[in-house]
Amino acid sequence: MCTAVIKKTRTGSYFLRNLDDSYYFKNELIITPKDYQFSLRGYDDIQVVQKYKIWGIGRVIDNFPLYFDCVNEHGLSFAGLAFSKLAYYREKDESKINLTPYELPLYLLGKCKTIKEVADEMKDISLLKMDFSDELKLTDLHFVMGDKLGNSLVIEPLKNGLVLYPGKDIVLTNAPTLKYQFFYLNNFLNLNNGNSLNSLRFTIPFSNYSYGLGAYGLPGDYSSCSRFVKANYLVKTFQDSKSYLCTVYNLFNILGQVSMPVGAVYREKEKAYETTVYSVVYALGEAVIYLRKFNYLDTIKINVDAYQNYQGKNKVVSYQI
Amino acid sequence: MCTAVIKKTRTGSYFLRNLDDSYYFKNELIITPKDYQFSLRGYDDIQVVQKYKIWGIGRVIDNFPLYFDCVNEHGLSFAGLAFSKLAYYREKDESKINLTPYELPLYLLGKCKTIKEVADEMKDISLLKMDFSDELKLTDLHFVMGDKLGNSLVIEPLKNGLVLYPGKDIVLTNAPTLKYQFFYLNNFLNLNNGNSLNSLRFTIPFSNYSYGLGAYGLPGDYSSCSRFVKANYLVKTFQDSKSYLCTVYNLFNILGQVSMPVGAVYREKEKAYETTVYSVVYALGEAVIYLRKFNYLDTIKINVDAYQNYQGKNKVVSYQI
Amino acid sequence: MCTAVIKKTRTGSYFLRNLDDSYYFKNELIITPKDYQFSLRGYDDIQVVQKYKIWGIGRVIDNFPLYFDCVNEHGLSFAGLAFSKLAYYREKDESKINLTPYELPLYLLGKCKTIKEVADEMKDISLLKMDFSDELKLTDLHFVMGDKLGNSLVIEPLKNGLVLYPGKDIVLTNAPTLKYQFFYLNNFLNLNNGNSLNSLRFTIPFSNYSYGLGAYGLPGDYSSCSRFVKANYLVKTFQDSKSYLCTVYNLFNILGQVSMPVGAVYREKEKAYETTVYSVVYALGEAVIYLRKFNYLDTIKINVDAYQNYQGKNKVVSYQI
Amino acid sequence: MCTAVIKKTRTGSYFLRNLDDSYYFKNELIITPKDYQFSLRGYDDIQVVQKYKIWGIGRVIDNFPLYFDCVNEHGLSFAGLAFSKLAYYREKDESKINLTPYELPLYLLGKCKTIKEVADEMKDISLLKMDFSDELKLTDLHFVMGDKLGNSLVIEPLKNGLVLYPGKDIVLTNAPTLKYQFFYLNNFLNLNNGNSLNSLRFTIPFSNYSYGLGAYGLPGDYSSCSRFVKANYLVKTFQDSKSYLCTVYNLFNILGQVSMPVGAVYREKEKAYETTVYSVVYALGEAVIYLRKFNYLDTIKINVDAYQNYQGKNKVVSYQI
Repeated sequence: MCTAVIKKTRTGSYFLRNLDDSYYFKNELIITPKDYQFSLRGYDDIQVVQKYKIWGIGRVIDNFPLYFDCVNEHGLSFAGLAFSKLAYYREKDESKINLTPYELPLYLLGKCKTIKEVADEMKDISLLKMDFSDELKLTDLHFVMGDKLGNSLVIEPLKNGLVLYPGKDIVLTNAPTLKYQFFYLNNFLNLNNGNSLNSLRFTIPFSNYSYGLGAYGLPGDYSSCSRFVKANYLVKTFQDSKSYLCTVYNLFNILGQVSMPVGAVYREKEKAYETTVYSVVYALGEAVIYLRKFNYLDTIKINVDAYQNYQGKNKVVSYQI
Repeated sequence: MCTAVIKKTRTGSYFLRNLDDSYYFKNELIITPKDYQFSLRGYDDIQVVQKYKIWGIGRVIDNFPLYFDCVNEHGLSFAGLAFSKLAYYREKDESKINLTPYELPLYLLGKCKTIKEVADEMKDISLLKMDFSDELKLTDLHFVMGDKLGNSLVIEPLKNGLVLYPGKDIVLTNAPTLKYQFFYLNNFLNLNNGNSLNSLRFTIPFSNYSYGLGAYGLPGDYSSCSRFVKANYLVKTFQDSKSYLCTVYNLFNILGQVSMPVGAVYREKEKAYETTVYSVVYALGEAVIYLRKFNYLDTIKINVDAYQNYQGKNKVVSYQI
Repeated sequence: MCTAVIKKTRTGSYFLRNLDDSYYFKNELIITPKDYQFSLRGYDDIQVVQKYKIWGIGRVIDNFPLYFDCVNEHGLSFAGLAFSKLAYYREKDESKINLTPYELPLYLLGKCKTIKEVADEMKDISLLKMDFSDELKLTDLHFVMGDKLGNSLVIEPLKNGLVLYPGKDIVLTNAPTLKYQFFYLNNFLNLNNGNSLNSLRFTIPFSNYSYGLGAYGLPGDYSSCSRFVKANYLVKTFQDSKSYLCTVYNLFNILGQVSMPVGAVYREKEKAYETTVYSVVYALGEAVIYLRKFNYLDTIKINVDAYQNYQGKNKVVSYQI
Repeated sequence: MCTAVIKKTRTGSYFLRNLDDSYYFKNELIITPKDYQFSLRGYDDIQVVQKYKIWGIGRVIDNFPLYFDCVNEHGLSFAGLAFSKLAYYREKDESKINLTPYELPLYLLGKCKTIKEVADEMKDISLLKMDFSDELKLTDLHFVMGDKLGNSLVIEPLKNGLVLYPGKDIVLTNAPTLKYQFFYLNNFLNLNNGNSLNSLRFTIPFSNYSYGLGAYGLPGDYSSCSRFVKANYLVKTFQDSKSYLCTVYNLFNILGQVSMPVGAVYREKEKAYETTVYSVVYALGEAVIYLRKFNYLDTIKINVDAYQNYQGKNKVVSYQI
């Protein structure tokens, strides 16, 4: 399970996400250089040439960057989140550009600067059903993107076709569809961050015995829908700051409230506890990533430019983080 | 608003708490030396002589330590949490030892090593209604204590008298009473951290579409009752670790989930947002405090012994942290 | 389990209640004549002489009326509701008038016209722990009374003593205490009967997709607390009518929404389903009872005066209904 | 707003529904004779000849029966329920049989005996966008049908086309789609009708202080989703009886719990309270309807055959009820 947010603030736009899974694994900072090229999996001879540098978190196999989340040098971001049983990838469609899900971030971030450009590109794209390898099968995903201007785009590969949701200040969690989640969110529009409104004028003792009773009913469990509602509540009540540090601090608070304390969610099939492997905040348009890792008490500030960004033509660079 | 927890783990017992208020203020590490003495406020000539060293967080006025939370060298801990409109301090009772609420931690931690000893002491104590000064009035509080063995004690000064709740793995938030909170917690005993149990055998599509649906209904708002339930759920599902670091990490996750992101709770009277001023984890029996401060991204490990602990006979020592 | 309400309306004041139990049993209309006398159980030789006629539902043993609910000719009403594990009856207290719980309705309704008079009487009363017979043990109860003026009184026999809650438009269900229930009700004061207020100004599609989203979060389960909240919501949003018939119809709707459909609540110990044995509406100050019985589709209007009300001096009259 | 249920029981299959609206209106029992014929609105010269007699509730305009709910002599039932903003009727499709929504019940019930037959018919049907008259515009509806065998079919006219949901023991309320409602229902699959399961093994006082705590969290508000969950819970926990009367009594209890007490839901636009105009239970395969009307305390048993069923060839018969 995962939670991702695109949030525009006074100090810039940010992309943030928790990556949750049933076990902890090590991650890498991956930098894909501007001159990176790759052959499209669905074709014999189409070579994609990147225009923009991309960095993010994931792992590299055979010099191919498999990003969980990433941005490009223009502040366009991308992440895939689990979308079990609903993701639908297709056979090759000759009228479209057929991209596998793991090629999609490279293709879009290598080519586009903004969500507007992405939306144009998406018109011609079909998501191809083709495993990365025999060992690495396709996983059911939907995708969220954001840009420096604070615009966002959610892409859901459904049976009926790719569905796009443009927006701002967006939250994405897991299945069901974003359309469902918005409908569901409507149930909580009576909540507020102050006192109970007492529109029905009850006169009972100890009225508003606690601050924040106006939000009574806000969900706190770990299901995809409840995290969606909680994160939206926090995005909506987010208090802007002129301090960059405070902004990052506040954004991590959103992630913290929808993260997975070990024990809180048990995955019965895997006989394992869901875990927040990492929480990350990307400052869009800057070469900075803030990272909180599982079982690590501090926040790591990654200055991407402080790493060696280039190790040869067409070579993906990665660092254990 | 505040949340406090006493938790026994494989790596020892811990006392943890969020201190929430409507504005941020700076805090001090305060060390009260073994030879500290103070005159009881309610008497002309009773001098209390401490036996044990105490440290914690708060502020010092006129060489008197006003602790928000503290421990002594034997791992006995103490914290006061807001208990609005329900706390009841009394006129002087000649049959009792009359202590003001701000003298209580000094008195108990200066004299006792364990909760068992505290329980004995409390039989003779009455909480005296006497302001610290004209500027610093009494505040409505209830109290939670824990020891190295994992035993805990909640002390509530009610109109009917002091009520004591001994226990283990205890959570305390704010008003109403702990008795009420336990009753309320009963409503959530059907929740679990796995799948929905589907005892009624519905056969509908997308059953358990998300992990963790067994906890659907767990509250996520910021009221005292909802934090009480959420923290209890997290304490109960807490996964023990043999690593000291992982334990502290997991404990901070509990605090993070019941903390106050700026904006989430608006205090209408004060026209201000509730804020988690700090989150703190005390390793009971060790001179170590882990601290997370407002608008600070890292966790501060305070080795109390690394500070100068003694600055002269009967002198309270403090450091900005 | 049971739910009772005292409600003042444009067409008069009413007392209504569901009697819920794990099995169905037949009930009787019981009329206690004005000249009825009984010896107080706790004393050797105190004879109570009734001043007012009483009628209601229950059963008669040895010419003694055991009322589940009843009223007197002046429109003063009384009902006992299950109060498991919290009811506390006492040994004889020589400074008080000691009444058993089953003598209480007779004593009060035989002597008082209004809640005000009852409140005066209660000052001197202690509830005596004495079974009706070897076969018929005491049950844990608390009590609700109402009068023609719409005033109500809840009486809870707690360990600390009898607690009285005067009020208007009151709801009573089962354990825990009314004090707890009011505290609990505070959690729902943000609800209203119109649209979602959307104070946080979300802009999402299908806003207010259903009428009544302002009440989303209102409980619908059958626990005592949830019925308390639901019935209070319905009492508060009740729409007054100048028609007597509409009033009764609306009052039965309140009862219907907190009644027990067979199957909805399973009592594990008894291996039986909780059942609404009957629902009843008393028009206070009139000799009319409206009754809905288990497995009976119509509403029975009982004109008490149409029954023979008197069958001899000091003789309790009863009819199967 | 409305709620409808198809329920198979030991004493036969039933169709039940609440018709809720913002004002009360009088209703008619309408009997459409076997020899009834009507011209299809979307065509110049197609005449539909009924094979089966139909009866139900609604009103008649120009000898055309506009049914809110109805059944035919073989126990096939039909009802339309509000489906705001989601119903999508189409322009004429030459490849289909184009029926207006108000012709649909006549067409299907005049021709089919079972849901199986209906499902076959529906393959060729398109719902035509054509008002009944200038005064009587089309309303947004979705449809639920049931047969004597207990099979049911929900028909939703969506933008993507007619969606059919075959099933048993089905509940239908209002928008959003049934697909959404089933997804939503998944959130409540941890509930049960007994005690709290306490899987996490809390040891706190007053555990299961009330019967039915296993269902804590069941919604009680009046939104379409909450009624859907509540009615499903009641259908699933329904206790079968061998008595016909008890069955009908129990079915009315389901309707009662999702009905609209006056005041509970305020429609802001109309400045009016939502009202249950009537509740009705049809015994499928029998000529009997049980009716509860607004502001009427009893249940009306309508023996359809006791009315004059035929008033001349092709003539719709109606009676104020």
